Amino acid sequence: MNTKAYAVQHATDQLGPFSFDRREPGPHDVQMEILYCGVCHSDLHQARNEWNNSIYPMVPGHEIVGRVTKVGDHVKQFKVGDLAGIGCFVDSCRECANCKAGDEQYCLTHLVGTYNAYERDGKTPTYGGYSTQIVVDEQYTLKVSPKLALEAVAPLLCAGVTTWSPLRHWKVGPGHKIGVLGLGGLGHMGVKFASSFGAEVTMLSGSPSKEADAKRLGAHHFALTSNPVVMKSLAGQFDFILDTVSAPHDFTAITRLLKTNGTLICVGVPPEPAQIPPFSLIANRISIAGSMIGGIRETQEMLDYCAEHNIVSDVEVINIKDINNAYERMVKNDVRYRFVIDIASLKG
Amino acid sequence: MNTKAYAVQHATDQLGPFSFDRREPGPHDVQMEILYCGVCHSDLHQARNEWNNSIYPMVPGHEIVGRVTKVGDHVKQFKVGDLAGIGCFVDSCRECANCKAGDEQYCLTHLVGTYNAYERDGKTPTYGGYSTQIVVDEQYTLKVSPKLALEAVAPLLCAGVTTWSPLRHWKVGPGHKIGVLGLGGLGHMGVKFASSFGAEVTMLSGSPSKEADAKRLGAHHFALTSNPVVMKSLAGQFDFILDTVSAPHDFTAITRLLKTNGTLICVGVPPEPAQIPPFSLIANRISIAGSMIGGIRETQEMLDYCAEHNIVSDVEVINIKDINNAYERMVKNDVRYRFVIDIASLKG
Repeated sequence: MNTKAYAVQHATDQLGPFSFDRREPGPHDVQMEILYCGVCHSDLHQARNEWNNSIYPMVPGHEIVGRVTKVGDHVKQFKVGDLAGIGCFVDSCRECANCKAGDEQYCLTHLVGTYNAYERDGKTPTYGGYSTQIVVDEQYTLKVSPKLALEAVAPLLCAGVTTWSPLRHWKVGPGHKIGVLGLGGLGHMGVKFASSFGAEVTMLSGSPSKEADAKRLGAHHFALTSNPVVMKSLAGQFDFILDTVSAPHDFTAITRLLKTNGTLICVGVPPEPAQIPPFSLIANRISIAGSMIGGIRETQEMLDYCAEHNIVSDVEVINIKDINNAYERMVKNDVRYRFVIDIASLKG
Repeated sequence: MNTKAYAVQHATDQLGPFSFDRREPGPHDVQMEILYCGVCHSDLHQARNEWNNSIYPMVPGHEIVGRVTKVGDHVKQFKVGDLAGIGCFVDSCRECANCKAGDEQYCLTHLVGTYNAYERDGKTPTYGGYSTQIVVDEQYTLKVSPKLALEAVAPLLCAGVTTWSPLRHWKVGPGHKIGVLGLGGLGHMGVKFASSFGAEVTMLSGSPSKEADAKRLGAHHFALTSNPVVMKSLAGQFDFILDTVSAPHDFTAITRLLKTNGTLICVGVPPEPAQIPPFSLIANRISIAGSMIGGIRETQEMLDYCAEHNIVSDVEVINIKDINNAYERMVKNDVRYRFVIDIASLKG
């Protein structure tokens, strides 16, 4: 089926109108009309080939929500008219130990990204959510509650689960002190979830202007990372630090804030290697760990929890025509805290 | 009491004869005649001020075993004639959360190193085990079984507990695959303990000549880290890697060997920061952690376990007069796997 979209044709191009065919839904597929698509910083990295793995033409977008328009004969969990969501991947091998454990995001064979990837056949390119419709196997499709503002649900599919998953994996909750480093798309969800889980949350930010927002989002404390007196006073204070920063930064200074046995959880992807003096790990038995998005089951748990607890992203809805400007603003961190494309603007 | 020793006077000097006074044992102190003292690589680092924190004159040595010669009035656990041991520290604040938890090695206030440190008074220098006797509070003194060869017990006090502690902390055992990186003083104990705990152990070494030894020590497999085909075949294979290497090395290549959720445990202290591309952490939810020696309670547990399971270090006993040559050989990794000073050679 012909599908309208915005695509980028080369690393140095801007995004512009594009069209392509989606497959007809197979027996296990859900077809949905896309209503909103969040704009993730990784869209920009990949559109510009900053990770050196880009496939063009590229239709970015992996924070997708919409309404089911057709289902295959064997589809059990969705019917026409349901709200649904698609996150960062649309398939995986389904057979490896990680897929079987529900950790499809760490599929050992072939995780099929929602865009900038190939289907399991190894040759059909996948196109993302800056488009009017999508067709995905129901096992990789999420149920979305009608209780929440749909445009504000979209970023939960990536920014939401990327922070939810490690907080759940490391069982962050009451009695824990956690620092959330960086208040952007990921950080603002990290603050919301960590405080909802009962942890004592400190926003660690280099921008004094973000203090009021951090507290509105649920942070109990705000600490300015550029203030050495503040940083010294926080040495050894945190059980966890959720590091959402994708710019180069000083890991040694951050690890100093951890308690003995504390864990720095990285979810951002800075362009340069982290420099970790081994003694900084050893002297306090700390860990530095990473976490990437989340599996289908936990994404659904997150969406259900958000519906129950009325948690959504803070978004700025844009017209698809403003996407290139949105990218420029995103580079300058000029968004509180996620752009979301109103896909109606693609349909005109 | 006058005590004979070997000391270093300046960073660029060799070790030579020295004498100093030990305190008379107080009511809680154990005085012991030192019989053997292991030679740790950190002795050399500190003697040469390679960590920029050296106090001279310095009497190195923190792998100390000997026989109790006098006890204070309130000492309950030791009597004259008992074998005893002293490890890397001789006191700590006793009041912080870590001391109270039995993790004195991570004392938040003042860990009193066995040498190159000051007592809790902040001014009395501590002198280590390259000496004829030592006086230590009984709470920081270990019981040593007469079942084992005493000279081979000495290195358990540092090399032993440094590998024991993380293997116990991370509960390494049956069903786990562990790689031990580097076959030296630490690595050879890591292999012995990990295999004794029931894990499947692979020795990861750059020296083909060490394969036979690794297997004799308990490794089930041997992998040559310089062979890219071998390294590729081991990608994603290990639940844990115990990294005992103190030379600069490629952390990215090592982390590739970890399974999803695997942990790299660093116990060596390379001179340069580890370079960790954040994506290497994130893509597989791995952790990089550090661990430093062990607490008093776990050191005692380790010594008791070794007595029960007949585990000791592989040692080369030397005369104190050969200590400078031993340092030179240690720099070249020319020791299998620990030098131990026969302190009788100091008493002549």
